[in-house]
Parts: sequence; C-alpha cells; structure tokens
Amino acid sequence: MTVPASPFWSPAIRGLHAYVPGEQPQGEGWIKLNTNESPYPPSPRALAAIRAAADERLRLYPDPQSLALRQTVASRFGLEAAQVFVGNGSDEVLALAFMALLRHQRPVLFPDITYSFYPVYANLYGAAFEQVPLDPQFAVRVADYERPNGGILLPNPNAPTGVALPLADIRALLRAHPTSVVVIDEAYVDFGAESAAALVPEFPNLLVVQTLSKSRALAGLRVGFALGQAALIEALTVVKDSFNSYPLDRLAQAGAQAALADEAHFEHTRQQTIASREWLAAALAARGFACLPSCANFLFVAHPDHPAAGLMQALRERRILVRHFRQPRIDNHLRITIGTQAECERLVAAIDEVLA
Amino acid sequence: MTVPASPFWSPAIRGLHAYVPGEQPQGEGWIKLNTNESPYPPSPRALAAIRAAADERLRLYPDPQSLALRQTVASRFGLEAAQVFVGNGSDEVLALAFMALLRHQRPVLFPDITYSFYPVYANLYGAAFEQVPLDPQFAVRVADYERPNGGILLPNPNAPTGVALPLADIRALLRAHPTSVVVIDEAYVDFGAESAAALVPEFPNLLVVQTLSKSRALAGLRVGFALGQAALIEALTVVKDSFNSYPLDRLAQAGAQAALADEAHFEHTRQQTIASREWLAAALAARGFACLPSCANFLFVAHPDHPAAGLMQALRERRILVRHFRQPRIDNHLRITIGTQAECERLVAAIDEVLA
Repeated sequence: MTVPASPFWSPAIRGLHAYVPGEQPQGEGWIKLNTNESPYPPSPRALAAIRAAADERLRLYPDPQSLALRQTVASRFGLEAAQVFVGNGSDEVLALAFMALLRHQRPVLFPDITYSFYPVYANLYGAAFEQVPLDPQFAVRVADYERPNGGILLPNPNAPTGVALPLADIRALLRAHPTSVVVIDEAYVDFGAESAAALVPEFPNLLVVQTLSKSRALAGLRVGFALGQAALIEALTVVKDSFNSYPLDRLAQAGAQAALADEAHFEHTRQQTIASREWLAAALAARGFACLPSCANFLFVAHPDHPAAGLMQALRERRILVRHFRQPRIDNHLRITIGTQAECERLVAAIDEVLA
Repeated sequence: MTVPASPFWSPAIRGLHAYVPGEQPQGEGWIKLNTNESPYPPSPRALAAIRAAADERLRLYPDPQSLALRQTVASRFGLEAAQVFVGNGSDEVLALAFMALLRHQRPVLFPDITYSFYPVYANLYGAAFEQVPLDPQFAVRVADYERPNGGILLPNPNAPTGVALPLADIRALLRAHPTSVVVIDEAYVDFGAESAAALVPEFPNLLVVQTLSKSRALAGLRVGFALGQAALIEALTVVKDSFNSYPLDRLAQAGAQAALADEAHFEHTRQQTIASREWLAAALAARGFACLPSCANFLFVAHPDHPAAGLMQALRERRILVRHFRQPRIDNHLRITIGTQAECERLVAAIDEVLA
C-alpha cells in the first residue's frame, strides 16, 4: 500500500521514512534467520501463565503501572521498581526515550552503522542527531563521542555487527558525559556482552534498555524494559502516561513475569545459541567468509567473492531468509540469525550449494 | 512516585500533565463502576483463540501489518483492509491520529467537556487546540465548530456525558469542513449511538475510531482500530512504523479476531448493558438525580442535595468505585459505569443508605 501524502497529513510527518522490519513470511517451511528471533520456544512457564491469564479478567484494564512486572524486573537486577520502566517491546521503550530524554538542543549521537530504527525515531520526534562512524573494524570507539551532544545512544552489542563494547568503555563514556543521558540498548546482551545494569546506582545519566524478544524468545509478546535512576524512569512514565496508559496488556504482563522467573530455560537456550554461533562462525570462516566477532544471536559476514545481495537471493530460493542492508559500508554484508544447530547446518549446506 | 523534572528531561516534556486513568484496585470485592469496563466476560471464542495462540510461535514477531485482523474489521464494516488501522487500544490509535493528522497550523477543536486524554495528546505532540463549550444541556452543537480549525475531534457518544450526536449532525460537520480531518471517537457507540463507519466511503476527511475495550469486554487485551479512506490510514501507518513496528502482540491479534466474529455474544452483552442502564437511570431519577440521556455504558448524574465528591467517597467506603472529575461545570457530577443488573441493584441500595 503506497498512498501519497495528502493535505490531511500533519506537515511534520510528510517527509518521514518509516522503519522496515524484516520479512515475516506467512507460509510454512521457511528457515527464518532474518529477524534475530530465538529458534527455541519461550519458557513453558510463560506459556502456562498466559493461558491462565486468558480468562474473564480480560474484561478489566491491566495495571497501568505494571507494578508486579516491574518488581520482578527490579529484583532480577537488584534495583527498585521506581528504577524500572516497561513498554510494548524495547522499540516502544526506545521511542519514548527519544521523546522524553533525547530531544535537546544539541544532537543525540549514535553510530553510523547501528539499529536502523534510531534515525527514524529521531526524525519522528524532531530530535537533532549525528551519526558517529564506527572504526574500520566496525567497532565503537568511545573517544569518537567526545563532541557536544544532547545524549548518546549505543547498542551493546551493536547491531547488525554483533560487536560488543567492554563495560570499562561504557563507564568511561558515562564519566565523560555527566550531563548527557547515555542509553545503552542491550537487546542482545544476554548472548555474551556485559550488561551495564549494575552501573545504574552509580550513574544518574545511564538508561539501560533490554527486551524479552530475543533471549527470552518472546518476540510475539512485545515486552521490553528500561533500567535507570528514578528521575529518568519518571520522564519515560510521564510521556507514556501522556500517550497510552496501558501499552502492556494483561497477558504480556503475566507472561513476561513468568519468563523472567525461569532462569533454567533462559540459561539453557542462550547457551545453545552461543554454542551454535561459535560453530557457525567457524564453518563460515572455513568457507572464506569474513566474520565479525559476535556477542549477539547473529553473525555479520561478508564473502570476498560472492556479493551479499546475490547470496541472500540464492538462500531465499532455498527458503532460508537472512537480512541484507542496502547501506554504505555494509552493503556486501549479511546478518544471519543463529538458528537451532540443525538450522545452522542446513544453512551451511545451502551455502555450499550456492558457492559450489 | 513523584520525582521533579531533571536537566536530563527533554525540555518539551517538562510541563506535561499526564492523563490519570481510573483506579484499578488490586484487592478483591470491589464493584468497579469507574472505568467503563464491561461487567460481562469477553467472548469465550476470544479466550479460546488466545489460549490456542499461547504456544511456541510466541518466539516469532507478530505480523507487523496485523493483516488478518484488519481484514476481519474491514469485512465487518464493508470496507477494505487498506481502510483499517489497528493499534494498542484506541488510546494509542488516537495518539497516533494526533501526530499524523491533527498537527496543523490551525487548532484542533474538541469539546470542553470530553475525554480528558485529548488535551494531553495535544500537549504531548505540540498540537494547537481549542475547546468548544458544550451547550447548557451538555450536548455538542455542530454549528459551534464553524471556526478556523486544523481538525475536529468528537466522541460519539461523548464521554463522560454519554450524550450522542445524530448521524445527520456528523454528516453536516463533515460537509462543512471538507479540508479538515474529522475524528469521531466511537468508544461507546455500540451502546446506542449511530456509527459514522458507513460514511467512510463518502467522506475522505472522516476517521472513525473504535475499541474492543468496552462492548467487546476486552479492556485487558488492548485493541482499538480506526476506519477511514486509505490516505488517512496510510498516515497513521507511517507514524506507527516510525514508532513501533509491532504494537499488537500475537495474542491480541488472535483474540480480537475471534471476538469480532462472535456476534451473538456481542449482541447479548450489549443488550443486557442497555437494559440495565435504563433500569438504573430510572432508579436514580426516582431518587432525585439529574441524569443525562445516555447512549453509552455509563450514566452521568448529579444530585441537587448531595455533592458528588462526598457521594463518591461514601460509595468508596462501601467498596463501590465511581468516577468523579474535578473540573469546572461537572464537579458535581458522577460518571457511573453500568454493571451487571445485580451490581446496579447493589449500587442503588448503597445510594439509599447514603441518602437516608
């Protein structure tokens, strides 16, 4: 559906370019390695909690404060509920953070190669921004952020590269910018990076954002959260309560709480993903791919002799979806989600066919 | 939690006054007549559909387009999917409508006494607005909207009054303002007002907003929708896709589709609510209350001898919650949600105690 802007549109939205999420094929039989979902099911305890909540109480509004869920998150990180904000996926949390904390006179800084939703949020809310180039090895150099700014936004590990920043670098960044909010987007942190959550009590300028979509295998439930000192959380809350009192339905609140309580399932599935990632990275390297060191549930790879766009298409013909970004510096790379071990092996077999 | 604004906050949010939703008591034993929820359970088919969707597919993102749900809504109203937008409750739909369609140089117009979220949205998005007084009988006079505007927003029936506008008035308004978007918020339309949905093919400036929170008894699931011609729907879509690709989780999409298909349950519960409303209106009138003619699932009432704030408190002590708005013109009124017939009778008994 493409309809040109009409005079009815608010002038401010006429130039927007929306974020384009990865394809969600409707048929069966696809190996989906394109949107960084978990290949493993969510915690059975989460599914049981959702089914138990699917009763006549759905006639009632949810708790607008999501207090029980916020307490569950808080206790996991040794924080208070007043230091936790929850939202409809970390995408919504990040959007509200842009509104509430990142619209200052000076530009918000984020990498040139990163989650492509960031500039979309900035344009939607009219936040000035500057993109700071990754170094030639696609790593963030925190020293490059030493310029006037109205906030800093870094994913750790970064996407789509998978490259992580050491906690010492994040600490240095927080110290160097005491008057700027520093948002660390930890969507993929559970696959091998160090969380900055432990720094929340020390740094009033730190906001850590996480999601249940990846390591908790609940992309379909839409739950994300932010951790920060109460003044930052209150800013998010004021904006959320000026927008939608109840973005988390009763089922999402119940399922998220149960998922966060199932440590065994979480540990088992993330360790399987990490093991398959290391296996796949070695298999792809053996086939000539350059492969960035990943702390995420995906690999970012390029082959010197096989252009990425053609590879993506050849895999698609074999019903394997991977992600390709038509963007300077990375248009010869593919981002490949870590599937089950069997899916990783099928991917390698398909690549062998294509490269043959 | 009240934390003063900090220098980290975006300047634009420092003066915001968030919307305050009605209380959701956590204990048992309350008669909740304060947030216009249905006293009847949702469709059993909706609950079954949610339980069936609570499986390992929750590891996958939902359809970002919510296409199946939009087709279900569209076919109910004789429209196309491209004429339907769905969101996380009609609150989110209205918020996105403010961003996408109601931020023009001229002010958006809405009544002085209406859903108190409207000025909150306008302030959040920096939309100029003017509040047009209801007439002395608390009715909307469409002629009063004949002034320069950048959009018009009317609930039909209005809240918290319950008073409905005839479709002829809405048609006149649409004709009189062909260059303005006219948003008709039909949260309560199924309890006795005429929907403007049938006017969508005729008027490119019409957006109709409905919710599953009231007549479908699914406040806890967070699903609302908008109907309009494709150019208006596309504006909402661009903003939504610049904010959160997937505001409707898999469970909400499945449950909403099943709820909309259960016509028998819908008819039965809304007719019960209408019957109890008429009974309660007569009972309150017999006790000296002035009671506006309601086409909604609530009554808006005032007693000449018993101030509303005291009545609300006395009912609260009897574990019955009703809503009171501290606002000029209506601070002696109570908004009372229609409960089950038994709840209405308990309310009347409690009022008899208080008035005795």
